[in-house]
Amino acid sequence: MAATMLVPALVDIHIGNRDWAVFVKSAVFTSVLCGLVSLATSNPEIRFTPRLGFLLIVAIWLTAALLGSLPFFFSTLPISFAKAFFESMSGITATGATVLTGLDSMPRGILMWRSLLCWFGGLGFVGLGLLLLPSLRIGGIQLLHMESSDKSEKILPRIHQIATGIILAYISLTLACTLLYFAAGMGMFDAVNHAMTTVATAGFSTHDTSLGFYAHNRAILIIATIFMILGALPFVLYIKAVMPQRLMSLVDPQVTLFFVIIVGLSAVLAVGLKLESGIGTGDALIAAFFNLVSVITTTGFATEDYTLWGSEALGIFFLVTFIGSCSGSTSGGIKLNRLIILWQLASASLTRLIMPNAVIKMRYGRSEITQDVAQSTLLFIFLYMSSLVIGATILTILGNDLGTAFTGALTALSNVGPGFGDTIGPAGNFSTLGDPSLIVLSYLMLAGRLEIIPVVILFTRRFWSR
Amino acid sequence: MAATMLVPALVDIHIGNRDWAVFVKSAVFTSVLCGLVSLATSNPEIRFTPRLGFLLIVAIWLTAALLGSLPFFFSTLPISFAKAFFESMSGITATGATVLTGLDSMPRGILMWRSLLCWFGGLGFVGLGLLLLPSLRIGGIQLLHMESSDKSEKILPRIHQIATGIILAYISLTLACTLLYFAAGMGMFDAVNHAMTTVATAGFSTHDTSLGFYAHNRAILIIATIFMILGALPFVLYIKAVMPQRLMSLVDPQVTLFFVIIVGLSAVLAVGLKLESGIGTGDALIAAFFNLVSVITTTGFATEDYTLWGSEALGIFFLVTFIGSCSGSTSGGIKLNRLIILWQLASASLTRLIMPNAVIKMRYGRSEITQDVAQSTLLFIFLYMSSLVIGATILTILGNDLGTAFTGALTALSNVGPGFGDTIGPAGNFSTLGDPSLIVLSYLMLAGRLEIIPVVILFTRRFWSR
Repeated sequence: MAATMLVPALVDIHIGNRDWAVFVKSAVFTSVLCGLVSLATSNPEIRFTPRLGFLLIVAIWLTAALLGSLPFFFSTLPISFAKAFFESMSGITATGATVLTGLDSMPRGILMWRSLLCWFGGLGFVGLGLLLLPSLRIGGIQLLHMESSDKSEKILPRIHQIATGIILAYISLTLACTLLYFAAGMGMFDAVNHAMTTVATAGFSTHDTSLGFYAHNRAILIIATIFMILGALPFVLYIKAVMPQRLMSLVDPQVTLFFVIIVGLSAVLAVGLKLESGIGTGDALIAAFFNLVSVITTTGFATEDYTLWGSEALGIFFLVTFIGSCSGSTSGGIKLNRLIILWQLASASLTRLIMPNAVIKMRYGRSEITQDVAQSTLLFIFLYMSSLVIGATILTILGNDLGTAFTGALTALSNVGPGFGDTIGPAGNFSTLGDPSLIVLSYLMLAGRLEIIPVVILFTRRFWSR
Repeated sequence: MAATMLVPALVDIHIGNRDWAVFVKSAVFTSVLCGLVSLATSNPEIRFTPRLGFLLIVAIWLTAALLGSLPFFFSTLPISFAKAFFESMSGITATGATVLTGLDSMPRGILMWRSLLCWFGGLGFVGLGLLLLPSLRIGGIQLLHMESSDKSEKILPRIHQIATGIILAYISLTLACTLLYFAAGMGMFDAVNHAMTTVATAGFSTHDTSLGFYAHNRAILIIATIFMILGALPFVLYIKAVMPQRLMSLVDPQVTLFFVIIVGLSAVLAVGLKLESGIGTGDALIAAFFNLVSVITTTGFATEDYTLWGSEALGIFFLVTFIGSCSGSTSGGIKLNRLIILWQLASASLTRLIMPNAVIKMRYGRSEITQDVAQSTLLFIFLYMSSLVIGATILTILGNDLGTAFTGALTALSNVGPGFGDTIGPAGNFSTLGDPSLIVLSYLMLAGRLEIIPVVILFTRRFWSR
């Protein structure tokens, strides 16, 4: 992390910005702190348990968010620590909600740092989702488990293989996106930054108007749409070459559903947009696809305020904010594999009410939905909904109007970015919210990103008992 | 039902209103229609199955709502059929949301009919919750099951006993409430009407300002608060004398939680109210208790617009709209017994993630939470939340603003009555909503009242297959 902080320092030095010192200062602070922690905990006798796994995940993301906020806090930006922390958390969780305005004239080092946070956050989340969460049996991801039959041998080398595969795929996607953005007419700095936040489905931009800055450039919008989708697909698809044989034949139902939803809802939006505003078919299609994909992949770019597209559009965007994309990708939300499992469970339970003795096999693709998967998926959805309601309640108590409170909690929890309404909608940002509200939203972003259970479990008494 | 329609007719005749003909017309229509249906279906060879149970419950409530709307539709009120249907559904589901204004000068027969719908709806729901839903294994109510050990004998006589007990308790509560209202200074007509809608935790009033009309009369507000609570307690408490021995010793944890929540949150509200507006301690306590109890019991009376009490109050009322009161009562919402079960399930699931081999016993009071209870409770909460999100989405698409759409869906689903915001908040009503929105809200009221599962199950293919 300290080394990464030197990247924006170099950018600032390169263009003659004095701000570079901010990053060096942060890098030194980070190195010293982490060096000390590393020395103090260099005990080789730790056994890996689920408990340690949960603690580590939360500790890593929280520490990254805290250290990531240093450059914002040390910089000349006139922001409180809560704001700096929110911005950093929004980056590392690949949410993309911002408290900063005046992005277009902001020191480039800061802009670069925001994008880097997103990029590493996205990469870390793919690794978490494919390598760690399944073995911790987190809500419904078990089905994407990698190490299946032969537990005895080659687990560590395989994890190493998979991790390498993920990193290579992630870097390749980012490079391809950068080059395409550049070829389509973005400056190199914008191309690099937007590529990082596109593939991470994060949504930070270097412009206050987000990708609306390039609204006239159809090629850029199409490239963005494609790479948001690529970032929201399960990375298993990209690393099949290094995967165990058994998984190579797996057709993932969530991918099919993902494309069906995107095409269906975008078409409805495009028709509505064309009828309502009378723009050309091409423009309507691009605007509809781009903004819908931006929300469903939980990226949060915007070309314009899509909440003004009329009531059909508002309803669709509201619904889509709940859904999210595929597990095993960089995107957030409830996610489609869980919705498929929940659908199967609900349908089986309803059937059992009519035919108490019916034997119902529930399947996700070719895998059976076991009792364990069912329970942890239901636990996830219950905690997700409870977090949403309690989060919205606290935000209301902190003085936000009900719409801002509810959609703010929702957009934070699902790591989308923009909410609804004048304050935090796609045309607004989070700068006018109070510091306590930003802390609550930061918590929700963290909980949403880490699939809720690892965060909530730390609040149980049992977790800390012997 | 036809006979009941003659009650408001008699009221109208008694005070010389011409409107009485409306009710006679409705009664004749109802008698003829139901007589024909009864003749056409007089087949004694029907076996009772869960399937028939679900169909019957929905058919009964839907038919009651349709026939109950006739007097509104036939009357001189200038309302569409959708509005008449909404008003009737709101009554029969004991929700208490209204599309009517000018209540103070409305024909008394119509006012009486609204109250009667609530009263019968509340009574029907207690019977449904204690007698029918448990044997259909609906989400978490199984634990309140009456016929336990001795399945072989005396089931029918016992059901008869319990039903008689419920009816006697319900009538006694209503009579006591009427007399107390009258003694406290209400006119007899108001006393009868408000008593019926208080005990049914429905919330229809004979005044546009609801019980705000009696805001100066502390005694009335205290009586209303007490009887809303009595209506929201499990009726098992009142009919212990006719209950099987085994249940007589049952201490129901939801009742304890109910009182803890009411006292805790009302105290917070009262302190906030006193600090904010500087009114006397007595007035603050009464206003806080009355309005909180009104929402948590899903009654929906209001003495004033409590959403203007500041952000703490707004947050509390928002949260409480989700919670609801006790199962086995007249109140709606998710209900406290389910929340207790969900809490136990979540806590057990989280523990199992840390200690995979732990054996965890889950209990609700003295009963064990079986796999069956767990599954159907989780099914309930999933369908509840899905209905809320999909309902809010459709209401948004129909052109309502997001706040009205979401809190409207919420208040309908939990059978409270008022939502939040200028349009449908405690100071507004549902008269400005379009007919399609009112139909959606009517569906949500019905689904919420019938504990969702019996309604949703009708939409499954399996239900209609052989």
